[in-house]
Amino acid sequence: MTRMETSRATTAKQLRPYTRPLIKNAWYVAGWSEDFGDDLLARRILDEPILFYRATSGEPVAVLDVCPHKLAPMRLGQRIGDDVQCGYHGLKFNKHGQCVHNPQGNGIIPPNAKLKSYPTVERYSVVWIWMGDPAKADPDNIPDFSVLDDPKLKPVKGGHKVESNYMMMVENLLDLGHALFLHANTGGMGNLQLTESKITNEDGAIKDWRLYTDIPTPSLFAQFLNEERADLWSDIRWSAPSVLLNNAGVSPVGRARDKSVAVEQYGTHFLTPETQTTTHYFYANTRNYALDDPAGDEAWRQWQRKALKAEDSMVAEAIQSVVPQAEELEVEMVVLSTDLSGIRANRILEEMAVAEEGE
Amino acid sequence: MTRMETSRATTAKQLRPYTRPLIKNAWYVAGWSEDFGDDLLARRILDEPILFYRATSGEPVAVLDVCPHKLAPMRLGQRIGDDVQCGYHGLKFNKHGQCVHNPQGNGIIPPNAKLKSYPTVERYSVVWIWMGDPAKADPDNIPDFSVLDDPKLKPVKGGHKVESNYMMMVENLLDLGHALFLHANTGGMGNLQLTESKITNEDGAIKDWRLYTDIPTPSLFAQFLNEERADLWSDIRWSAPSVLLNNAGVSPVGRARDKSVAVEQYGTHFLTPETQTTTHYFYANTRNYALDDPAGDEAWRQWQRKALKAEDSMVAEAIQSVVPQAEELEVEMVVLSTDLSGIRANRILEEMAVAEEGE
Amino acid sequence: MTRMETSRATTAKQLRPYTRPLIKNAWYVAGWSEDFGDDLLARRILDEPILFYRATSGEPVAVLDVCPHKLAPMRLGQRIGDDVQCGYHGLKFNKHGQCVHNPQGNGIIPPNAKLKSYPTVERYSVVWIWMGDPAKADPDNIPDFSVLDDPKLKPVKGGHKVESNYMMMVENLLDLGHALFLHANTGGMGNLQLTESKITNEDGAIKDWRLYTDIPTPSLFAQFLNEERADLWSDIRWSAPSVLLNNAGVSPVGRARDKSVAVEQYGTHFLTPETQTTTHYFYANTRNYALDDPAGDEAWRQWQRKALKAEDSMVAEAIQSVVPQAEELEVEMVVLSTDLSGIRANRILEEMAVAEEGE
Repeated sequence: MTRMETSRATTAKQLRPYTRPLIKNAWYVAGWSEDFGDDLLARRILDEPILFYRATSGEPVAVLDVCPHKLAPMRLGQRIGDDVQCGYHGLKFNKHGQCVHNPQGNGIIPPNAKLKSYPTVERYSVVWIWMGDPAKADPDNIPDFSVLDDPKLKPVKGGHKVESNYMMMVENLLDLGHALFLHANTGGMGNLQLTESKITNEDGAIKDWRLYTDIPTPSLFAQFLNEERADLWSDIRWSAPSVLLNNAGVSPVGRARDKSVAVEQYGTHFLTPETQTTTHYFYANTRNYALDDPAGDEAWRQWQRKALKAEDSMVAEAIQSVVPQAEELEVEMVVLSTDLSGIRANRILEEMAVAEEGE
Repeated sequence: MTRMETSRATTAKQLRPYTRPLIKNAWYVAGWSEDFGDDLLARRILDEPILFYRATSGEPVAVLDVCPHKLAPMRLGQRIGDDVQCGYHGLKFNKHGQCVHNPQGNGIIPPNAKLKSYPTVERYSVVWIWMGDPAKADPDNIPDFSVLDDPKLKPVKGGHKVESNYMMMVENLLDLGHALFLHANTGGMGNLQLTESKITNEDGAIKDWRLYTDIPTPSLFAQFLNEERADLWSDIRWSAPSVLLNNAGVSPVGRARDKSVAVEQYGTHFLTPETQTTTHYFYANTRNYALDDPAGDEAWRQWQRKALKAEDSMVAEAIQSVVPQAEELEVEMVVLSTDLSGIRANRILEEMAVAEEGE
Repeated sequence: MTRMETSRATTAKQLRPYTRPLIKNAWYVAGWSEDFGDDLLARRILDEPILFYRATSGEPVAVLDVCPHKLAPMRLGQRIGDDVQCGYHGLKFNKHGQCVHNPQGNGIIPPNAKLKSYPTVERYSVVWIWMGDPAKADPDNIPDFSVLDDPKLKPVKGGHKVESNYMMMVENLLDLGHALFLHANTGGMGNLQLTESKITNEDGAIKDWRLYTDIPTPSLFAQFLNEERADLWSDIRWSAPSVLLNNAGVSPVGRARDKSVAVEQYGTHFLTPETQTTTHYFYANTRNYALDDPAGDEAWRQWQRKALKAEDSMVAEAIQSVVPQAEELEVEMVVLSTDLSGIRANRILEEMAVAEEGE
């Protein structure tokens, strides 16, 4: 290989997080529980058009949004009891996707007349969907996000579409060092020196703990902790492929992570690939202070709009626009010491992708 | 082949109606007679950009809308007598597409300076264009649409662009069983039982006749047939590749298709491919009742807007958006007994396509 | 080869001017001097996203607008002194593109952390950029456009984006015979007979001189030359790949090109490829009359808007839309005697492209 070829091969490898096939055998967040009701809801996940509705039992139903007769989207039809009827020629399918009625001609139901059906689980105020081999769908593998249901905490939920591969957002969350620059105005943390940090890798989850001691209390929390200086921590847990739990908070100096005196919040970040290059982003900030204070809600709502949308997602989308051209531009990508969590996550995902390619 | 490969191959075959090459050796409708006048009109047909105008004799002229000098569209130029002049450097072409004047430099006309010219015929208030080998263009092969010129009938004409392959619309018209669902509100026919049906295949045309006897008079005709119950027929004739004549009407019970007592209309449906995935749809509803009643015109105009555009074309476009992904989604398409006419038509078209590929 | 294949091959060859790779080893105009200031300016050239700013010395800096860490566009960051800092994680690069600061983690700067840097020269009120091998960047090869700086002349500058390959515009300027048709209303010259013409080819520059003697004074100049009839010349010089200097003027009959009595202007035309199919067009009309007359400025501004944008660029864009389909449409392109300059230019460019492919 010439030097240019070597350089391109390296770049291609470094672009893999954004270009490799999406992981199928995984639980993804399809949406908040409240998104799913009696009405038909169409949402594209892993580039498959999926139709959702709740059965009369309350159970979330997920089937392919394509009628096998003439390929009309099922969302153009209507729900009848627990079934869904195509709006074009009237084929009716039950909640398992099996065709149960053909009102046309001789009325015979072709044996392969069915909609692909997807396993779902509703847990932690969230509907989860399994996009791969149904035999492998084990609800026990859904990571713990019980903070979302904790009555002693107050969540502020939101979401938006990001025009980038989901990994730009995952890597963003796995290195919160970007906050000092990208969120200079939304984090209010100045240029901090890290006191302690720790990365662990357990059961396919990566935890990245970061602690800053004895710093001026960051503006995000200053109103609620009556201390001029504080200990600040920002811990994050990533579970493959794309759900993250952040815990960030402040406490009086010397009592970092002491729940009894902490002013803290849990950030839940669900990055569900819509396509290879677009992502459903569902997030919540769940706090342990000012539970009934609408100003507390509004502060987090504004922060989500600015930090998660106008800043993080804006950068992710800008990067996405560069990715297809990066090889041709012969950009030699570089790695910093703070990319370690992202690198580990990518190694896990690469193994999962390779395993699925072999299936 | 693995099971997945077999399934994909089957799906690919079933998608052929929407993906196979467009038929060239055929008469297509370029537009209504009144669309063509002294001015230059550019319209893309079978993905060829075509320039139309009427010669002083009234004859419709059709030439490629591309100047062979620098590829400027001829539509940017102007008509001068029976000729058309390029607006860039002034090359002039006659109505046969031959260059007849070069105003630049030495004035020599290169021998191959010409615009491709297309046979046209004006018949039944419609301009027809032949897109294939001119030697095969026989006007006798234009199907009969004389109802459009019949002074005892009243047409309401319309048209719009459909963002789908033309076959979604052809198949739609060849199985009017969809009317009971897709046109539940625009057809007013309820869930009918077919009394008689007949499919014939003559000279490359397929006729699908359907009769419903002794039913409540459908709302579309109820105002004009003074009977609570009626016989209803809906017959359609398809001529390859894409022109259809529908005759639908009602009569007192027992006198189906008796012209002397029928309240009926002829629907002419011309589906001209603009590209592989977009279609010019020209249609008319020509009735034998309320000839001078503007309310009769308005009723059909509204019906065209709703049934043909908001319903039929909307579904066709939704299907088109699924087609490129159907194989990857491993949708196993199914066939119903009522798809028979469509299947026969597709078999004829497949043979025509194969014959043209061998040319 | 069959006849159709031969015809397609010929067409493919004639389309080469619009489809061959862009020339890299050349000076291109990045913009007018006044476009470049303290702020970051992002502009795509030869399909490379480039970030521009002026160093404190005034020197124009041009670096790739892509951070090698996570591919974030550098334009989202900020200038700090002579450096530019990425807005995502804070990597800082100097004006040569070398990373000089890493504020993250251990602070180590990876040795290959750099932005590609481009040679620039500021000359004739224009910033020039070299897009190829920096070792070949010789400022002496920048063609003379000193008319732009001449204090005895008055320029009116403008620019816009053209949605076409740059060669449509170059060929347009190299055959001003199109003016009689495309600019019938903006040139006011009627159907002239050429008195003398001359094409020379020196040092990779092509000069095309055209003279029309004893004609009615064209409207564009009539107000400023007090003569009913005049000699008119329109000379153009093209320098590979895409900068042109036009000199057009009128003088009393018999004194063509006599600077002492001429009413004339210099048209500078800089066509910088943004991508293969889009072009930055920077132009100026620099006149020797009515120097302090705002109406003189306004006349040229209007002419630029009409002739260069609404006419020339409109045709270029229409041609661009035909190019990808021209082979399939089997258009046999033809050549006129007046295309000679364009053909010579294309031959030079083809040689340059072939030479670069071999690199």
